[in-house]
Amino acid sequence: MPGPAPDATRLSRVGIVGLGLIGGSIAAGLRARRREIHITGLDEPAVLDQAHAAGLIDVAARDLADLAGLELIVLAAPIPAILKTLSEWPFDDDGPVVTDVASTKRQVMAAAARVKGFVGGHPVAGAAHGGLAHARADLFDGRPWVLVGGETHPGLTRVGPLVGALGGRTLFMTAEAHDRAMAYVSHLPQIIAVALMHAAAEACGEPGLAAAGSGFREMTRLAASPGDLWHGILDSNRDFVEEALRSFQAALPAEEGSLQGDRVQPLFARANRHRAALERDGE
Amino acid sequence: MPGPAPDATRLSRVGIVGLGLIGGSIAAGLRARRREIHITGLDEPAVLDQAHAAGLIDVAARDLADLAGLELIVLAAPIPAILKTLSEWPFDDDGPVVTDVASTKRQVMAAAARVKGFVGGHPVAGAAHGGLAHARADLFDGRPWVLVGGETHPGLTRVGPLVGALGGRTLFMTAEAHDRAMAYVSHLPQIIAVALMHAAAEACGEPGLAAAGSGFREMTRLAASPGDLWHGILDSNRDFVEEALRSFQAALPAEEGSLQGDRVQPLFARANRHRAALERDGE
Repeated sequence: MPGPAPDATRLSRVGIVGLGLIGGSIAAGLRARRREIHITGLDEPAVLDQAHAAGLIDVAARDLADLAGLELIVLAAPIPAILKTLSEWPFDDDGPVVTDVASTKRQVMAAAARVKGFVGGHPVAGAAHGGLAHARADLFDGRPWVLVGGETHPGLTRVGPLVGALGGRTLFMTAEAHDRAMAYVSHLPQIIAVALMHAAAEACGEPGLAAAGSGFREMTRLAASPGDLWHGILDSNRDFVEEALRSFQAALPAEEGSLQGDRVQPLFARANRHRAALERDGE
Repeated sequence: MPGPAPDATRLSRVGIVGLGLIGGSIAAGLRARRREIHITGLDEPAVLDQAHAAGLIDVAARDLADLAGLELIVLAAPIPAILKTLSEWPFDDDGPVVTDVASTKRQVMAAAARVKGFVGGHPVAGAAHGGLAHARADLFDGRPWVLVGGETHPGLTRVGPLVGALGGRTLFMTAEAHDRAMAYVSHLPQIIAVALMHAAAEACGEPGLAAAGSGFREMTRLAASPGDLWHGILDSNRDFVEEALRSFQAALPAEEGSLQGDRVQPLFARANRHRAALERDGE
């Protein structure tokens, strides 16, 4: 594997495919902190116009071929679109380094097998509402940014500076370990929030929900996420999500009498300890 | 039913039994906004010393009998202690008006049947950590404060001003409706947070949890609640909590293939709508 070229750790020309919440926030973050970086965007014309008007991109591309010659391309579209882009990848091994932001990594890594410069990525950050209008320059500040493909991948000379510029906390994981962890800490919580919102609203109606405290609001905030994004996420991680759902259901008190204080107590105490460890690790 | 005496809507002498997070925050809130109110506290000597030193109470009582002659007594101990106090209630029908702060209301209302001046209460507010040291004057600001016992109960001339002084949002409910709603919006979320924390920590360990985003932290914050408080809450509401658990489990995607995008989509869309209604109603 040849060493990086002398200028390989510089980042001066970046392309972003998909300017929604994540792609738009990457553009906004680079603008705020690395004003000298030239940004090319690719999306639908209306979105490109909006991004251009907001000063988030320098050039609007018409298709992938327009991104030739860039140092780094970030695929920031929903998973099905990322898979399609990778299947039509027009560049050879000397083409741009590529990374993505998909919330699951096994399917994307498989689709990217023939793209030598690909480093899988997942910035673990989001917001209540999607779309370019909600993009924020600080969306990734201090948040985990998982990279898949190994700590010695030459493409890291481009992807590393990107994550660094945006304030992300780099974590290296395998696609398998990433997807399994996300099933438990992201996809399962999402499904739980949706089911809780549903069960409570059906049972209580508005008068009951009016008595809800901040705990309930927190526990159901994820239920406001746009459902269409979740199509691709759940489809691409179904085995691990099903495992996580089973583990969660096994942890719920289910048998007759299991809600009695003395039987619930050990479960609560263990969860207290786990949660305290989570807080120590950097809340 | 005689009308209130001329001075019955004034509140000048209040007793608080139990100076933990809730009782302490009631004292702190009254101190901050109604400095003229004289507060008598009843708790263990060490807690009373602490409350006195913090300027939260004027007088430390030794037992219930010391609270004779007050206008309002607030029972702010855990549920088993509230039930015990009510069973030993030493005052007659002309004694102080009484209210409580218990998170479930059917058991308490039954125990208070012979206490004529009793108005059940539940300020729906909490914090990550219990105890007087975490008491806050603004804990109840803008939060629901459920009152049980009817909108014409004469005791409301004392309890109403208390809730008003602390900034609570009064909601009248029956004990039954309150307990059922709380099963869904408080007790079920608590159990879910505990089970999710448990399942994720067991499956992922620290490396996986390090990749967790803010959604997971939100969804497990309740798992930090002290388990001992939950003994009494779950014990006193077991039927409704079991119903809520069943409804929630029925709302989870369980069958083979139910995680496919086109089948998950309607569930997500419905939860989106319910959640939007919750936000409109005053988040």
